[in-house]
Amino acid sequence: MRIGMVGHAFMGAAHSQAWRTVNRVYDLPRQARMAVVAGRDETRVAAAAARLGWDGHTTDWRTLISRDDIDLIDICTPGDSHAEIAIAALEAGKHVLCEKPLANTIDEARRMADAAAVATGRSMCGFNYRRVPAAGLMRQMVAGGRIGEIRHIRAAYLQDWIADPAAPMVWRLDKEKAGSGALGDIGAHIIDLTQYVTGQLISGVSALTETFVKQRPVTTGGFAQVTVDDAALFLARLDGGAIATYEATRFATGRRNALRVEINGSRGSLAFDFERMNELEFYDATAASTQQGFTRILVTEPDHPYLAGWWPPGHGLGYEHAFTHQARDLIEAIATGGDIAPSFADALQVQLVLDAVLRSADDSSAWTSVTHQPVLSGR
Amino acid sequence: MRIGMVGHAFMGAAHSQAWRTVNRVYDLPRQARMAVVAGRDETRVAAAAARLGWDGHTTDWRTLISRDDIDLIDICTPGDSHAEIAIAALEAGKHVLCEKPLANTIDEARRMADAAAVATGRSMCGFNYRRVPAAGLMRQMVAGGRIGEIRHIRAAYLQDWIADPAAPMVWRLDKEKAGSGALGDIGAHIIDLTQYVTGQLISGVSALTETFVKQRPVTTGGFAQVTVDDAALFLARLDGGAIATYEATRFATGRRNALRVEINGSRGSLAFDFERMNELEFYDATAASTQQGFTRILVTEPDHPYLAGWWPPGHGLGYEHAFTHQARDLIEAIATGGDIAPSFADALQVQLVLDAVLRSADDSSAWTSVTHQPVLSGR
Amino acid sequence: MRIGMVGHAFMGAAHSQAWRTVNRVYDLPRQARMAVVAGRDETRVAAAAARLGWDGHTTDWRTLISRDDIDLIDICTPGDSHAEIAIAALEAGKHVLCEKPLANTIDEARRMADAAAVATGRSMCGFNYRRVPAAGLMRQMVAGGRIGEIRHIRAAYLQDWIADPAAPMVWRLDKEKAGSGALGDIGAHIIDLTQYVTGQLISGVSALTETFVKQRPVTTGGFAQVTVDDAALFLARLDGGAIATYEATRFATGRRNALRVEINGSRGSLAFDFERMNELEFYDATAASTQQGFTRILVTEPDHPYLAGWWPPGHGLGYEHAFTHQARDLIEAIATGGDIAPSFADALQVQLVLDAVLRSADDSSAWTSVTHQPVLSGR
Amino acid sequence: MRIGMVGHAFMGAAHSQAWRTVNRVYDLPRQARMAVVAGRDETRVAAAAARLGWDGHTTDWRTLISRDDIDLIDICTPGDSHAEIAIAALEAGKHVLCEKPLANTIDEARRMADAAAVATGRSMCGFNYRRVPAAGLMRQMVAGGRIGEIRHIRAAYLQDWIADPAAPMVWRLDKEKAGSGALGDIGAHIIDLTQYVTGQLISGVSALTETFVKQRPVTTGGFAQVTVDDAALFLARLDGGAIATYEATRFATGRRNALRVEINGSRGSLAFDFERMNELEFYDATAASTQQGFTRILVTEPDHPYLAGWWPPGHGLGYEHAFTHQARDLIEAIATGGDIAPSFADALQVQLVLDAVLRSADDSSAWTSVTHQPVLSGR
Repeated sequence: MRIGMVGHAFMGAAHSQAWRTVNRVYDLPRQARMAVVAGRDETRVAAAAARLGWDGHTTDWRTLISRDDIDLIDICTPGDSHAEIAIAALEAGKHVLCEKPLANTIDEARRMADAAAVATGRSMCGFNYRRVPAAGLMRQMVAGGRIGEIRHIRAAYLQDWIADPAAPMVWRLDKEKAGSGALGDIGAHIIDLTQYVTGQLISGVSALTETFVKQRPVTTGGFAQVTVDDAALFLARLDGGAIATYEATRFATGRRNALRVEINGSRGSLAFDFERMNELEFYDATAASTQQGFTRILVTEPDHPYLAGWWPPGHGLGYEHAFTHQARDLIEAIATGGDIAPSFADALQVQLVLDAVLRSADDSSAWTSVTHQPVLSGR
Repeated sequence: MRIGMVGHAFMGAAHSQAWRTVNRVYDLPRQARMAVVAGRDETRVAAAAARLGWDGHTTDWRTLISRDDIDLIDICTPGDSHAEIAIAALEAGKHVLCEKPLANTIDEARRMADAAAVATGRSMCGFNYRRVPAAGLMRQMVAGGRIGEIRHIRAAYLQDWIADPAAPMVWRLDKEKAGSGALGDIGAHIIDLTQYVTGQLISGVSALTETFVKQRPVTTGGFAQVTVDDAALFLARLDGGAIATYEATRFATGRRNALRVEINGSRGSLAFDFERMNELEFYDATAASTQQGFTRILVTEPDHPYLAGWWPPGHGLGYEHAFTHQARDLIEAIATGGDIAPSFADALQVQLVLDAVLRSADDSSAWTSVTHQPVLSGR
Repeated sequence: MRIGMVGHAFMGAAHSQAWRTVNRVYDLPRQARMAVVAGRDETRVAAAAARLGWDGHTTDWRTLISRDDIDLIDICTPGDSHAEIAIAALEAGKHVLCEKPLANTIDEARRMADAAAVATGRSMCGFNYRRVPAAGLMRQMVAGGRIGEIRHIRAAYLQDWIADPAAPMVWRLDKEKAGSGALGDIGAHIIDLTQYVTGQLISGVSALTETFVKQRPVTTGGFAQVTVDDAALFLARLDGGAIATYEATRFATGRRNALRVEINGSRGSLAFDFERMNELEFYDATAASTQQGFTRILVTEPDHPYLAGWWPPGHGLGYEHAFTHQARDLIEAIATGGDIAPSFADALQVQLVLDAVLRSADDSSAWTSVTHQPVLSGR
Repeated sequence: MRIGMVGHAFMGAAHSQAWRTVNRVYDLPRQARMAVVAGRDETRVAAAAARLGWDGHTTDWRTLISRDDIDLIDICTPGDSHAEIAIAALEAGKHVLCEKPLANTIDEARRMADAAAVATGRSMCGFNYRRVPAAGLMRQMVAGGRIGEIRHIRAAYLQDWIADPAAPMVWRLDKEKAGSGALGDIGAHIIDLTQYVTGQLISGVSALTETFVKQRPVTTGGFAQVTVDDAALFLARLDGGAIATYEATRFATGRRNALRVEINGSRGSLAFDFERMNELEFYDATAASTQQGFTRILVTEPDHPYLAGWWPPGHGLGYEHAFTHQARDLIEAIATGGDIAPSFADALQVQLVLDAVLRSADDSSAWTSVTHQPVLSGR
């Protein structure tokens, strides 16, 4: 299976490592071939091809689509170009892997989902955190009834890379390119992950967004307006009866990449923090009363999700292999015709949540003021 | 200083241990004397007096107020009787320590704050968690600028003692007695604690409450309606610019008494979990880049708040001594005329937040629905 | 039961808090009365009596023994006076609680055990850490077969209070007063605790001791020789087949009071660290393979050892209550005639281990040199 | 640089992933080419070549040495064949990377070090854990004086893969193949790592070894004698004045791959556990007294060792990349002529420690018995 990848920054590097590794770990019906990488700048894309190990490169992503020998288009660009590339690729009969968020607008996302629904090629949205083994184990345990009926979800994706007001303007802070800020970039991950793990969909929200630093220095001089949220917080109800808090922020000083999910059910609880990605905490309320507690499961056993091909127990995996596992699932589904998740339709559903969050945050009637008591002397 | 205590259940036992201990640890200008405990049932209050070490007992709390030899009334009853007892005590010139929440209604709380403002006796509301040494250290560090300008507060008080639907009806689940459920009982603690630590007041909220189990078995037979919230979640803005998530629940399976606060500022962060009450985590964003991380401070050093009188470093304190420290501060303030916090006015301010949360939770316009995408086949 | 306590420093304060508290938490057949405290200096012992809440004081411990109204002698002095006081008390028919280590020499310890064996009064040695609820739970779980046959013990008692060479000379660093250094002071605790928890006795050792700082400043001027070990390390075999590492040190920078025990068995493991004294980690090798891991048990449930009388789950206990629980067990055993552990004979057994450790550390034939390879250029 | 690898089991797979990845992450003067893999069984080595991504394969490792187009021989076989292959390769002018332990006997190891000293090719022994970024940071911090003079080392390598007596016989339990058991396999790692991090060499030891399960089922039927240690414990002194405990075991139930090192110095401490390989704990005794504690450094910053080429902060690495970093250092040293560590001479020094440990464990005079006190009635 010959891959054409568009974009070669952070996501491009991660996807490259996944394509390079996947057949070395898993016995799959098809071999991934790293055929061509596309980028806008000839010098930079050539260097990226050499560095990341692609056979060729191009400055025009359309050539990937017109070439008959490319089977799959892997879209690693900012969100504003997803719809155009993905729809063109699907219409040309290619398989498509598209990074999240699916698109910057509901309209684009819907057109992509529509195109996917009628295409001959298969499509997947790249919510990679689903493929962390501990996330897969969470889903298995929820589905297996280990925590019973779900009451609470506590989801946060905490980063701090722009907590310093001196951090420069980048495309991720520009609404035109990125659609939204922390919300779409990392909030989308916890929306997808919690819906995936619990099997419930968010049915309503109440939200708040904030931009703490309104202007950022531009590396080429001057200042630019930050047009996206630095942080987004929302309460939610899910259609299975759970209630939830969600928080996505780039201002959680000291939290580098803390994607955290805790789920409390009637028979137990699960807790995960990506900063310790090889661990899952499980509380079993049915255990003997003197022996209850959160169990730190080291998710490195051969019978844990995705682990059969890897190292012996206790020899943990790194960030990149959520992408390796994603590549495995995609290759298998393409080869066998099996279901793909998250589909573009699943990703559109995430987009609808993002949209509701932004609308709620803009709605002042959703807010209740607190009266301040005049301060009396401290008797 | 002779104490008269009203109520002798959980809070009465904790307060008793504090009064018994405080002069043994601290050199104070006055000695606490455990004079009389009041309770409704003669047999039970007599047994409690013997067990908890009070010199005498009574079945009528009014006798405590009429006796000249009682200096301080310590109110450990459910919230519905706080106003009557406290106002009577203040009018009689007694000092008053009143358990939280201050009252079950805004009106009662306001009358109590008004009474306190004109009384000759001193008054304090028992938000004991302020007196955990780690909480005091948090406040010192925030005030000292160690974490800079505050952006995020993440507060949760997680319990699970009624997660089992078979747990019986108790007064804490009855709105008449308790005013509200998780919100007033434990949500009040995190509202007070975060306002105390940050020096900021909550200015607005958006909230959600839920009662997962609507009916509970009564120990004497039959079922009773649960009339309070099992869980309350809210987003908040504080008047210093911070944004926050708050969660109070009795359904966080496996979390026994996890009062958690994390605060992210421009120069650092602080994180606390009462299940590890002798620890405080501090992130210093000004440290050398290769050496940054959350520092687990064992809050047991002699120069930590309240610690000078206690054991050597590393020999941790237990739950009860937040009350011992509260007793110390109250005795000192009474003897020296110093400021008291939290005053009844401070506690009224917490009450105003609780009220706004309940009003917001009842306001359907605060909610934004999410459209559900028809499920397509997973292409 | 009227108590006469000898010594009023750190241990005296801890024991006082225990005697004051024990009948407030537990329903016991006898009431502890804090009758008299003895100390050498009139001014200081009078102040201690007032501060710690004793009815009277004396500068001569022998008066405690001659008084008919004293039932129990509680010995909180340095080890060099234990034998004299304890034997006199036992001969006078008193009950005796003696702090650990039982004595500074084998000979003294043996005479104490002999006196205890024929006395009418009861006797206990104060290895308080046995009475931490998590330690009691460990013993229950080992005895209940939850970890199977024991293979490994990993015990360390890590402190750092003299890691700074400028820390002054104190009696604990003087062999005449203290007998040994880290070994007898804190090493004795982990020897007792591991033997208690596993039910196995140490049968042989190979040891090493070190004094890092040979001289210390005296607070009244000049320097004094440190005549005890700063750290003691030893390997051991136990009579049930387990092998073990033990380490006691006052130079583990950053570890304030980290008494740690890990035990690995054929069916599971247990791990404890006193710096988190309300927690016990348990690994169950018989659990489902995907769900195995160390479970952090919060040892605060009513059915955990000693917990029935205390606070609700999740409201942890502090250091001092190991002494409260010790007082409970002693009062119950005296009242009911039940077995007492650790008896003076048990404590003598610990002493025999301490002695073997010191002999092994002095035996140069126990050491094997490592040849150093001449350094070659790093080809 | 064309690689010929001998052996294709666990270590072969890990080395393959490293050779495949190293030039994708780092800009290096030479490109690693995965030329040929050698193995004894034609079918299995052919499958391994396909699976692991080698261009060719052979059943005779000598062909790798005779081929002019192979630059580096990577030895991933059991220890009994290391000397023959490595010496042949060095004599043929090849560069050599040899897995640890360097050899099964001192004599072999010495001959290898001698061969390396006069060879034109470069040589390195594969103590991969040195290349975990946190280990590199430990060494930097020790060298930079951040923890001062070292007093204590606490090293353990805890596994549990044969804790079950039913686990079958494998070559690692056969002295002929493996040389020793836990000692040489994993004990060697902590010896090397602690010497590397501290810059001190072990000068003497006192040791104990144990084989808990003497016979193991053979997969083809019957039982075989286990001829190596299941666990090895030793005390050590280092030439810079530190004292240490070392423990290597395959019977630490629940500890899958817990390589742990804690170092206490006069100015601070460091603690590492490979089960959380992206973290390092650092205690700074020079920090303000109220803010001291162990700092959990997430070792994922661009200025941490080896991290510059990797993912953004907080996106952790996995086990395999210690090998990627090893490959990087080796390629750079070969290209630039820089120093290589650990050299074969360094690895011989580790071997000399292993030898002293085994001799000490066999020396009964190193052991001191403990007298058992006859059990008296528990008075």
